[in-house]
Parts: sequence; C-alpha cells; structure tokens
Amino acid sequence: MAIVLGDNQYGKAENRLVVVSRDGDVHRIKDLTVSTSLRGDLADTHLTGDNAKVLATDTQKNTVHAFAKRQPVGEIEDFALRLGRHFVSSQEAITGARVLVDEHPWQRIEGNGHSFVSGSAEKRTTAVTVDGDRSWVVSGVRDLVVLKTTGSEFHGFPRDEYTTLQETDDRVLATSVTARWRYRTGEVDWAEAHAAIRLLLLTTFAGKHSLSLQQTLYAMGEAVLLARPEVAEVRLSMPNRHHFAVDLSPFGLANDNEVFHAADRPYGLIEGSVLRDDAEDPGLAWHTLPAF
Amino acid sequence: MAIVLGDNQYGKAENRLVVVSRDGDVHRIKDLTVSTSLRGDLADTHLTGDNAKVLATDTQKNTVHAFAKRQPVGEIEDFALRLGRHFVSSQEAITGARVLVDEHPWQRIEGNGHSFVSGSAEKRTTAVTVDGDRSWVVSGVRDLVVLKTTGSEFHGFPRDEYTTLQETDDRVLATSVTARWRYRTGEVDWAEAHAAIRLLLLTTFAGKHSLSLQQTLYAMGEAVLLARPEVAEVRLSMPNRHHFAVDLSPFGLANDNEVFHAADRPYGLIEGSVLRDDAEDPGLAWHTLPAF
Amino acid sequence: MAIVLGDNQYGKAENRLVVVSRDGDVHRIKDLTVSTSLRGDLADTHLTGDNAKVLATDTQKNTVHAFAKRQPVGEIEDFALRLGRHFVSSQEAITGARVLVDEHPWQRIEGNGHSFVSGSAEKRTTAVTVDGDRSWVVSGVRDLVVLKTTGSEFHGFPRDEYTTLQETDDRVLATSVTARWRYRTGEVDWAEAHAAIRLLLLTTFAGKHSLSLQQTLYAMGEAVLLARPEVAEVRLSMPNRHHFAVDLSPFGLANDNEVFHAADRPYGLIEGSVLRDDAEDPGLAWHTLPAF
Amino acid sequence: MAIVLGDNQYGKAENRLVVVSRDGDVHRIKDLTVSTSLRGDLADTHLTGDNAKVLATDTQKNTVHAFAKRQPVGEIEDFALRLGRHFVSSQEAITGARVLVDEHPWQRIEGNGHSFVSGSAEKRTTAVTVDGDRSWVVSGVRDLVVLKTTGSEFHGFPRDEYTTLQETDDRVLATSVTARWRYRTGEVDWAEAHAAIRLLLLTTFAGKHSLSLQQTLYAMGEAVLLARPEVAEVRLSMPNRHHFAVDLSPFGLANDNEVFHAADRPYGLIEGSVLRDDAEDPGLAWHTLPAF
Repeated sequence: MAIVLGDNQYGKAENRLVVVSRDGDVHRIKDLTVSTSLRGDLADTHLTGDNAKVLATDTQKNTVHAFAKRQPVGEIEDFALRLGRHFVSSQEAITGARVLVDEHPWQRIEGNGHSFVSGSAEKRTTAVTVDGDRSWVVSGVRDLVVLKTTGSEFHGFPRDEYTTLQETDDRVLATSVTARWRYRTGEVDWAEAHAAIRLLLLTTFAGKHSLSLQQTLYAMGEAVLLARPEVAEVRLSMPNRHHFAVDLSPFGLANDNEVFHAADRPYGLIEGSVLRDDAEDPGLAWHTLPAF
Repeated sequence: MAIVLGDNQYGKAENRLVVVSRDGDVHRIKDLTVSTSLRGDLADTHLTGDNAKVLATDTQKNTVHAFAKRQPVGEIEDFALRLGRHFVSSQEAITGARVLVDEHPWQRIEGNGHSFVSGSAEKRTTAVTVDGDRSWVVSGVRDLVVLKTTGSEFHGFPRDEYTTLQETDDRVLATSVTARWRYRTGEVDWAEAHAAIRLLLLTTFAGKHSLSLQQTLYAMGEAVLLARPEVAEVRLSMPNRHHFAVDLSPFGLANDNEVFHAADRPYGLIEGSVLRDDAEDPGLAWHTLPAF
Repeated sequence: MAIVLGDNQYGKAENRLVVVSRDGDVHRIKDLTVSTSLRGDLADTHLTGDNAKVLATDTQKNTVHAFAKRQPVGEIEDFALRLGRHFVSSQEAITGARVLVDEHPWQRIEGNGHSFVSGSAEKRTTAVTVDGDRSWVVSGVRDLVVLKTTGSEFHGFPRDEYTTLQETDDRVLATSVTARWRYRTGEVDWAEAHAAIRLLLLTTFAGKHSLSLQQTLYAMGEAVLLARPEVAEVRLSMPNRHHFAVDLSPFGLANDNEVFHAADRPYGLIEGSVLRDDAEDPGLAWHTLPAF
Repeated sequence: MAIVLGDNQYGKAENRLVVVSRDGDVHRIKDLTVSTSLRGDLADTHLTGDNAKVLATDTQKNTVHAFAKRQPVGEIEDFALRLGRHFVSSQEAITGARVLVDEHPWQRIEGNGHSFVSGSAEKRTTAVTVDGDRSWVVSGVRDLVVLKTTGSEFHGFPRDEYTTLQETDDRVLATSVTARWRYRTGEVDWAEAHAAIRLLLLTTFAGKHSLSLQQTLYAMGEAVLLARPEVAEVRLSMPNRHHFAVDLSPFGLANDNEVFHAADRPYGLIEGSVLRDDAEDPGLAWHTLPAF
C-alpha cells in the first residue's frame, strides 16, 4: 500500500475584472468574476515542493488581465476558451484548464453614455474545460429568482407515518434557478443562446402548470432542448423557497392565499438533468464544477 | 450613584411578508421585510421581569400579518404608519414605535399575470417613527449600485508624509448608494416621490461631473431638495468601490483606463447630509435608524 | 430658504490589517479591521469639488499601515486613539476623527510558535471619537453567540386581539450579543477590562434566571457597571433567536424541550442601555456609530 | 433523438435542528444543519406530475425531527446513516439517499450546566450516501481557518511573459481548510476519528515547512492516511488567502514581514486528493457532494 496523489487542480479564483471599452462617448462595461485552475503534471510540487511546473496563480491572474487588453473580451465563453487554451498550449506540464466566468449585468442610466446602474442580482455564467485539444463549454444562469402566485399544485404524494403535509391545488412556487447547459461541440452564438435560453426558462416556469417542482424542472429543461439544438443537456438546481400562508383565523380573518411568510430555511431542493438520449459523451464538461 | 435603565426598545425584526392581491388573472405581489420596535414604560420587564406592559414580539409579528390582510398594504410608508400608530394607541404603556420596511422589487415575466422575476437587488425602504401623536417618515433606497466609467476626477488634495495617491482627471467612480430622505410633515405621494427621487439620484450621479465623491453626494442631495418640496433633508452614505487600472506595462501593454481590478476592501466611505436651512426640527425622525 | 451641507464625514473603511511581531521563534499576530473617518471644514469639496482640505482616504489607509509599523499596535483602543489624534492634529481643516477597530481572535496551534487557528467568530471592537482635544472610547464585543437550554421564562405579557403566544416557564434562550460600553475619561487597562467585561456578560447571561430577555439585558449591563468603575454606560443589542420545539405529536412522540427548529427570521430584537445616573455626558461617544 | 430525464435528486435542505439532552442539571446540545435528498424511480413526477412516489420534502423534514427524538442523535455519521437507510428501506421507489450534516460547536460557559457560548466558526461535517444496501461516509471539516507567519516559501516557479511574482523564502500562509475524508467500509469511532484527523490537519499545516501550498496540502492528506487506517482518501480545498506586505518605503519605513494587507479577492485555490493506491472503489461516496 502506498499513498499517492490523486486528482488535483490549482489556480486563482474570483478575479474581479471590469473592462471598459469606448466608442466615442458611448462606453461599454464588462463586469466579470473570473476563476482559472490548471491540471497536469503537478506531482513534484505536491511531493517535494519543486515548483518548476507550477505556473503561479499570480501569473494566471496577470494573464487574465493581459488577455482582457490584448483583444476585446467578447462573450464570456470565448474569453474563457482563449484563456484555457493559452494555459494548456503555453505550459508543457499543463494539460488541462478550467475557467469559470460570471458576468454581472449593468444597465445604462438613461440618456448617459458612460453611467450605469446595476441590473438584476442574477448572473450569466460559463464553465469551460480544456483538456489537450478538446474543450467543453457549460454555460448558465445563477440567482435567477422567480415566483408564481398560482399555477402550482402539490398532491398525490405518499403518506407515511411522518407525513403531515396537506395536499394543495394552489400554492405559491418560488425559487432561485441555477441552470447549467452543456453545449454540443460546434459553433454557438453564445450571447444569443444565453438570452434565448434564459427566456425559455422564465416563460416555461411561468407558463407550465406545475404539479411538482420536478415537473417544472423537467419542462424547463425540455423546453430548452426542444428549442436549442446546440444544447446537449440541461442541469437545474432549484430550491423550493417556501411561502407559508399564515393562519389568521385567531384574528377572525380568512387568508385566501393572500398573506404569506417567506421562510428562509429549510427549503426544498430539487435537482435534475434533462438531456438528449443521443447526446455526445459529456467528457470532462461537468468537471468544471467544484469536484471537491 | 445609582444604576439606571436608559434608552430602550424591543420588537420583532425582519418579518418576511409577501402579500398577494388578485385582480382576476392579474396578480400583484408586495414583498416586504418588516421590523417593528416599541418604546414606552418598560422599566418593569427590565428590572423585575414583570411583563405586564410587554406586548410580545410574537404579537407584533401577528399584527403585521393581520394588518396585511385587513386592508390593502398600499405604500410601505402608509403600512408602517398604520402599524406604528396602532401599537402606540392600543397599548397604554407604549408611547413610541418604529417600523422599518424594505420592499423588494419584482417584475412580471412577460405575458403572464401571475409570474414574476426578481428585479434589481436594490431595495426601497422606509423608517417610520411614531411618538404619541407625532410621526416622522424617512424613506430611501439601499443597494442602488451605480458606476460611471468617466466624468470623475480627484486632485488637489493635500500631500502629507503619508500621501502616495496620484492625482487623476479621469477615473471610474463606483458606489452603492444608501440614501434616506426625511419628509416634511404633510401629504406625500409616497410612490411617486420615491420613483422621482430615485431617478434624480441616478441622473445626478450620472450627469454631475465629479471632482470628488463628496461633490457628487452633495449634488445628489441638492437635486432632490430642489425638485421635491416635500423633502426636508437627504442623507447619503456612499462607499467608493475602488476600481484600480491594472499595470499591464510588464507585458508591454498600455492600459488606458480599460482593464480594472474591482477591489473589495478597503473602500472609501463618504457620508453626508444635505438639508434646507429652514427644515423643521428632525425630532425623532432619525432615531428610527439603529441607535445601538 | 437655502440648501446647506449638514453633518458629514469621510474616510477609508475596512482596512484589513494583519500585524506580525516576533519574539525569537514566538510570533504574535494582530488581525484587525480598521475604519477611519474624518470631520471638519469640508464644505469646499462638497460644494465646488475643491479638495484642498481633503486628506485622501488612500492617505488615511497608508497612515494606518505606517502607524502599525512605527510603534507596536498594542491594544486596539490605543491604536485608534493614536490614529484619531494624528488626523486631528496634523490636518488643520480636520477637527474630528472616528476610528473603528475590530479585532479577530486567533489561537496558537499547540506547540507551534508561528501557527494559528482562528478563534471564535466573535469580535472585540472599539469605536473611538476624537474632537479637538477631547476623546471618547466605546469598546465592545460583537457576534458573541450564546444559548441557554433552560433558565428562561416568558409569561405575564398582555393578550390583545393579536396575541396567540403561549406562556412558558421553560424555553431556550439564544442570542448573539452586540455590546458596547462607554468608558469614562481616564486611564483604562483596555485588555483587562475587555476580558473581564466579556466574562461578566457571559456569566450573567448564564446565571441570571430570565423572565424576559429585557431582564437579562439589564442584568448584564448592571453586572458590568457594578464590577467595572471605568465604565459609564453599557448598550446591548440582542436578537432573540427563536428555537421552536417542534410538534412531534403527529408521530406519537412527546417533545419535552428536546427537539428544536432554530428559525432564521424573524427574530425578536431587544435593545437597551444601562448607565450610571451620574455618568459624565456622553458627548460625541456614540456618534462613532453609523449615523446614517 | 428523444429527450430524457437524467440524474436527479430531491429533498429538504438545511434543516436547522437543535437537540437538547439532559443529565440532571447538565444539559448537552447538538446543533446541526441537516439536508436530505432522495433518488429512485422518480420519472413520473418529472414527466407527468404524478407524485405517487415522491415522499414530500416536508415529510423528510419531519422524519429528521422524529429521528432526533426517537433515539439519541449520537454522532452525526450515525444519525445520517439511520436517516438515509430509513428512506431507502421504507419507500419502495426510493433506492438512494444522501444526508449531509453540519455540526456547529458549542462550549460551556464556565461553571454552568445549561449555558453555552459558540465555539469556532468551523464546522464538523458528514456526507452520507446510501444506495440499496450499500453506504458510504465522507466526513470532514469546513471553515477551519489557519495561518502561519513563517515557514512558507514559494520559488522556482516558471517565468513566462505574464509572470511578475517575486520569489520568496518567507511569506505568510493563510487559508480556510475544507477537508473531506472518505472512510473505508467498516467500524469507525466517528468522534475520535474526527478529532484526531482535525488535529493532524492542524499540526501538519503548522509543522510542515511549506515550499508550496500544494506541498502542504499533500502533507496534510498524507499525515491523515498514515495515522488513520480507517480513511481511504482525503480531499482538500484550500484558498490561499493572500497577505501582502505593504510597501512602507514611501514613508521611510522598512517592512520586514510585519505589516500586511489581507486581501479578499482574488485568492489562490489549491485543491487535491491524497489516497491509498489500494483504496476501495469510491462508489457513490463523492456523489454526496453537490453534483449540480
């Protein structure tokens, strides 16, 4: 029996990068949080502290900055691919890279070319993996907070010895959507795809009469796959943020789904994947997400 | 020398209240965080644990819920005034009340009468104080995150032995505005005032060529007072969220205010009040804010 | 009617300062979060953007760093007083300063002179105000999280139309103590006082049979004043972090205060001040706390 | 091509469970955050909203509560195994369960049998997976915050066109350890193992002269495997929380690793696994961690 080094990666996380481009008086900003991590022939640094193959995390950070200048950042997927491919191609010991980018939305303050007010708290995300000459892109949204005041039911569930929940044919359904979708290999109009997929998620959540959050989740994933051939798989994680109709009867008042207490914890958590049965192998696509 | 009880208040903080109203298929939501606290003849509970005058915080919470049902919530200022006045008038020992309400914005998911997506992370706020038959309303915004990519300078500051900062005639100015404005006694169209003041804050931030964040702060307060006679005073707290142009020269690249690192801490913090020199006495208006 | 500038202050907030001192192989760390803000003749920068009197916040930050080197930091109160007095005495336009310092505790990893593991999440705090040649020190603790599983009752409260709370003679009492105490003018052994006061707060919370959280609050403040002549006043803010005994009767089980759900929000919030009736005037002591 | 449901799980997350047990006047508390999720034959609810196989998340929550009463909670691993096995054995459609438990430490307030003060912010964790009659236990620590003021070097790294980092033979090394260790099948004294492993992690961090955080990570994992035969694998995720020695030369002061700025973001992030080359197959052990 020997003790060995297993899976490992290292890099610089959460570089807060803001890039300004100017077109005369009209300025644009890209507000990004960029994390890079590298994989490869890294046993030495672990075993003996020999760092000859360890491209410093500080260097990774500098690279992110320099790349943001060398060429317009463009869409976050492209930026992440450029960075990932650079690390893998420029460092012999480095065989794989993962680049995560969150984009924070800004809106213009009306009538002003260089002033902005923060958009929603929602993030546009991408997680890109490069391994040798292969690459995978998993994009998504996070903190997409939605709520419907009706159109959600929950009944027909088993009643065991611990079940007290009353069935309902009308409840509030509130969640914060984290969605990630794996793109197929090939050309993708990243921005257009993101905007369209986001809208599909919203409209499906809104429109699908829900008999369970699972059913809503599946419908959301399915809607994306039906409309977007460039997507191979959609994974969703959705907390059920419980809104409890408070009991007003002690005060002689009825509560017809009008007055709710929005609870913090606990919350339901519904997670699932919807995919094409002929989807290409995911390879290392999902390994871009925290494996630790 | 005796030890005595000083200033005190107690209540229920951060009731997460969501109220749904229906107009056929069109639903509306009010998503509020409501905190109430009471003042009065409360020595007994402190000194002996005699709670005869202590309206339970649980009761205050129930009251918030019941009031949300009894009558349409309406604007948060009115809701807070109703609650505050109720506590003071219904409990002999209670002579003062403070009610804080944050409103969280939602937007409709297009084409759907009962589905919503979260708006900005910004909050609409009010802090209402009732004391006997007097009342004060201090409304505001919080987490109004803004940024300008130019139109901000900072120079002419003293250079002491600890000064290293370089002067600049062009920098990014980014902040998260917490603004509170004290209304004069009298009728106010709360929603219209809030929307208008919010817009004034945004457009002044955007349009005022800034030689210091203090100058911008003053201009924002002044713009509100000039336009809104119902406001007696504006207080602003604005962190200067530093965006540092990274040094790309080691890589043979120029950085003409294009690539920035957005630092977390430390941050500048600029706070000030702008008011009418003939403003009515603030009374207990500002005591609605944490005094502890 | 004219629009005028009111109360204002500016500075650099949340400098994360870690200072290492070495005594041979034994190292010590001071881990501090330092915020400074200045007051004075600052109308110009607000009104015209003339910054001739504005000691840059970056300079304030540099000063904090330099002072941490020039002399051992020592106790946070002394460090804050040195900084505050420096700003007021060195800048003609600056007549007042406020320095807030949080100290984060570390403990040694056993047997090692230079390695540390983080202590509790609790903070030791000070808020120092300097105005001309006067100064005030308000020290404290924050995030001191405590819980008792018995020794807490709550009954005898009024029952209005909105009251549903059941009386109890045995409940869990859990809170996070934010305590601030105002020192009298004069010599204080800051570290000894802090440690002793912290212990008094803990032991009083633990030992005082509580008929209300207000009673516990008063007892805690009173215990400090009785034991510590250097303290003029104690202010406490304590959330009542509700622990609800879950109803297990549907499962044929009793719950004798054994199984609790610890709720997040809402929470009770009990705040009060205990002081000596002959305490010196607080002056600007409490203005060190956020006034906006 | 058909669209199909992929991997999925659902449950109730973050039940805040506090359990009090009494031994005369000596009370004990277990303060836990418990999340359960179930897997199985769940296509129906996703595809048609037929919930006949969906044990409600509310029921899962009730089960956690009831189990906390039926039998002493004991060690978190045992509690999680009991829960996981219950769900799998009691519900025909449910073939797998995951139970995550965080334990929050409390310490007694001296001399008092029923009063407690919060220990460190660090958490003791477990993530248990049950699948049919198999089970896996992955325990750990999170938010174990450590720092060494010397004994850390970093040099010998490659210098590419983007490298500016200076080599160092003496730096501060600060991190927040998230460690998870996979137990082998068999009997384990959970509490003793946790305490011992925690101590090994601390003492190795402290004692290992570090030429890279990777080397420290490997040493920590190796130390655990050498000492604890019941552990098959250790995974560590450690941010490098940069402490930058500030440049005091503009003020005529030297800074011999004395005065540091502790930066928030970005931070290095070093992650790796150390394992026995003959470790049993991990099976579904690591799938207890967020897969989405």
